[in-house]
Amino acid sequence: MPVNLHPPVAALLLPVSGVSMGIAQANIKRENRNDLLVIQLCDGTRVAGVFTKNRFCAAPVIVAREHLAVDNGIRALVINTGNANAGTGEQGLQDARATCDALAGLLGCEATQILPFSTGVIMEALPVAKIAAGLPAAVANTVPDNWFDAAHAIMTTDIVAKAISKQVVVDGVTVTITGIAKGSGMIHPNMATMLGYIATDAAIAQPLLQQMVTTAANTSFNCITVDGDTSTNDALMLIATGQSALPEVNLVSASAARVLQDAITGVAIYLAQAIVRDGEGATKFITVKLEGGRDEAECKKIGYAIAHSPLVKTAFFASDPNLGRILAAIGYADVEDLDVSALQLYLDDVLVAEKGGRAASYQEADGQRVMQQSDITIRVVLNRGLVNQTLWTCDFSYDYVKINASYRS
Amino acid sequence: MPVNLHPPVAALLLPVSGVSMGIAQANIKRENRNDLLVIQLCDGTRVAGVFTKNRFCAAPVIVAREHLAVDNGIRALVINTGNANAGTGEQGLQDARATCDALAGLLGCEATQILPFSTGVIMEALPVAKIAAGLPAAVANTVPDNWFDAAHAIMTTDIVAKAISKQVVVDGVTVTITGIAKGSGMIHPNMATMLGYIATDAAIAQPLLQQMVTTAANTSFNCITVDGDTSTNDALMLIATGQSALPEVNLVSASAARVLQDAITGVAIYLAQAIVRDGEGATKFITVKLEGGRDEAECKKIGYAIAHSPLVKTAFFASDPNLGRILAAIGYADVEDLDVSALQLYLDDVLVAEKGGRAASYQEADGQRVMQQSDITIRVVLNRGLVNQTLWTCDFSYDYVKINASYRS
Repeated sequence: MPVNLHPPVAALLLPVSGVSMGIAQANIKRENRNDLLVIQLCDGTRVAGVFTKNRFCAAPVIVAREHLAVDNGIRALVINTGNANAGTGEQGLQDARATCDALAGLLGCEATQILPFSTGVIMEALPVAKIAAGLPAAVANTVPDNWFDAAHAIMTTDIVAKAISKQVVVDGVTVTITGIAKGSGMIHPNMATMLGYIATDAAIAQPLLQQMVTTAANTSFNCITVDGDTSTNDALMLIATGQSALPEVNLVSASAARVLQDAITGVAIYLAQAIVRDGEGATKFITVKLEGGRDEAECKKIGYAIAHSPLVKTAFFASDPNLGRILAAIGYADVEDLDVSALQLYLDDVLVAEKGGRAASYQEADGQRVMQQSDITIRVVLNRGLVNQTLWTCDFSYDYVKINASYRS
Repeated sequence: MPVNLHPPVAALLLPVSGVSMGIAQANIKRENRNDLLVIQLCDGTRVAGVFTKNRFCAAPVIVAREHLAVDNGIRALVINTGNANAGTGEQGLQDARATCDALAGLLGCEATQILPFSTGVIMEALPVAKIAAGLPAAVANTVPDNWFDAAHAIMTTDIVAKAISKQVVVDGVTVTITGIAKGSGMIHPNMATMLGYIATDAAIAQPLLQQMVTTAANTSFNCITVDGDTSTNDALMLIATGQSALPEVNLVSASAARVLQDAITGVAIYLAQAIVRDGEGATKFITVKLEGGRDEAECKKIGYAIAHSPLVKTAFFASDPNLGRILAAIGYADVEDLDVSALQLYLDDVLVAEKGGRAASYQEADGQRVMQQSDITIRVVLNRGLVNQTLWTCDFSYDYVKINASYRS
């Protein structure tokens, strides 16, 4: 069950002026399920995104990148579940383009003004005829205030939908930001597709918008994934409709940009953490804090070594303070010249290890107490620099194996 | 249950002249269990080894390296289970040295002529008094022909003991090689201690002996582990007693050295594969073959990306040919300029993917048939160079989580 993650409340999700959504049942993999979402954008909307770096990146990722590069104004995003259209070669590209063509025909725009996204099983042909047949219903159903259903329509193995709204006042104008995301594969999050869509009614200049989505991703979705290694389909899109009264924010308007960036990053962090809290089979939410490192790279190396260790993760599942496993992970993280006798390891506020071994003050009962919690922080103080870094992960349970051994069936 | 791994047969394990073994119950972690092994070596025996590169390496690893560097002739190895003496700081070093002192006192040699090894729980103090109390019994029980019991005495979470003997004729002289090993943690094998001891009655010059153990490790134990990242305690020792009639083999006697190397490597590969076959919770033995790579590094990157992917491993557990997961792993292996449309993916003899997607000839029934087997080969033909590399791993089952969530209790 999701760890301290509450389902979104429809009434708390705020419409973003200029964005409307329509949903349909296209029977892509299963019957009677919302599996097709069309997000329409008003004229003048700007869109920027970050995509997976996987070399087997999915066909829709390639096409979405191409269409963003054309830069003639994005009018709609189309997202299907049930099939990732990845590992599908030349046919996959044709299918992704055919999806855009079909939607462009309905909306009366160019195919290059559509961004396609897919999530689901890899290496099976996209049932593009079913999608094309479902698009008219999705377009017909379009309403501005449908983030709640949209968040549900993009779910795959997610148990809880992920959605949040924020409002901030920028130069006296209230700006709305609403975001949704899907994803729940957590052992190697880089392999389970994460999709995120964040929209604001602010007007944001294109180069700043690209910076903002990159910055937001780097401190959120990229802190639950490995070194830029991502799934075949991962994408985070940032949409700025410009429908608020706020004048366009650009690289010159630094203070307004900073307020917006913080709010957008906050939404992204909420969504990224929600993905971890809904991690497949998760029973614990684990924050891994690295402090006093020389640079971000070494902090991430050690953090990921801990966060990916199945032995560490199963110990957390068992609520067993078998914390030597964390030391072992730190030791094999491949950080040059790491002096293990200089670091401290904490579990929440409990000092567990220092001077290369168990801390004199450490009592197993204290470790046991922290391990019983559902939210736990592992803190490693490296004492060799000024850089800090936080990552998030979850534990590793029987249910992870169960879910992933039966995903296709 | 172990995958196609048969328990050793005592009568097939050949004594190695110059090596004798004694076993005791020291009650280190549990009562009534053989947990202490002393391997005694005759005068003139040479020993070389490779050890973990983990920066949190265990105290016995540090002490064993020191004693090998002293180079005044190793007289005995002492191995305990139940406690790894890792993450134990300065006290751990004292305890490892005290173990050597106690055994040296019994054998009438220097402490620097003893090599200590430990495996078990990390970050708990070594019960050195229990070990010292158990050593006289281990020494008193010493017999030359006890490899079978020795292989059992070093087991921790192993289900099946690992041991094998080989004989080869070198320049007309029959040489015996017998090896034992322990280890069974397989998801990240780098975290579960692997210990291996291979002895031969050949005489081998020290520099060659070191080369031989390094070569043997690189094509066996290091092919089930990550980039030299290993547990806190891993060690593979090669022992040459020089008791056969064969004149000393050195770097000049190339043909004899080659025959010996092949036999020693063969023993090491058998033991390393046995560790995978006995992988915690394993139900499938998976060979990952990379062919046509530019160099070993890129082959290993892709191979380990596949071999470590929990999504791939759970698909094998489920016998589900969800082979897109393998493509995704290849894609995120971080190999520069990898052209995914140029490679082929095979499952045993079945061509699964080429040209960036599913092969036209591929039938799901063929994938299904191979997935039902207990021994499966994943073959990736990169078509960009001449280098091949083989790795071994196992699938990922409910039982892995069960074993590792309850290891300490």
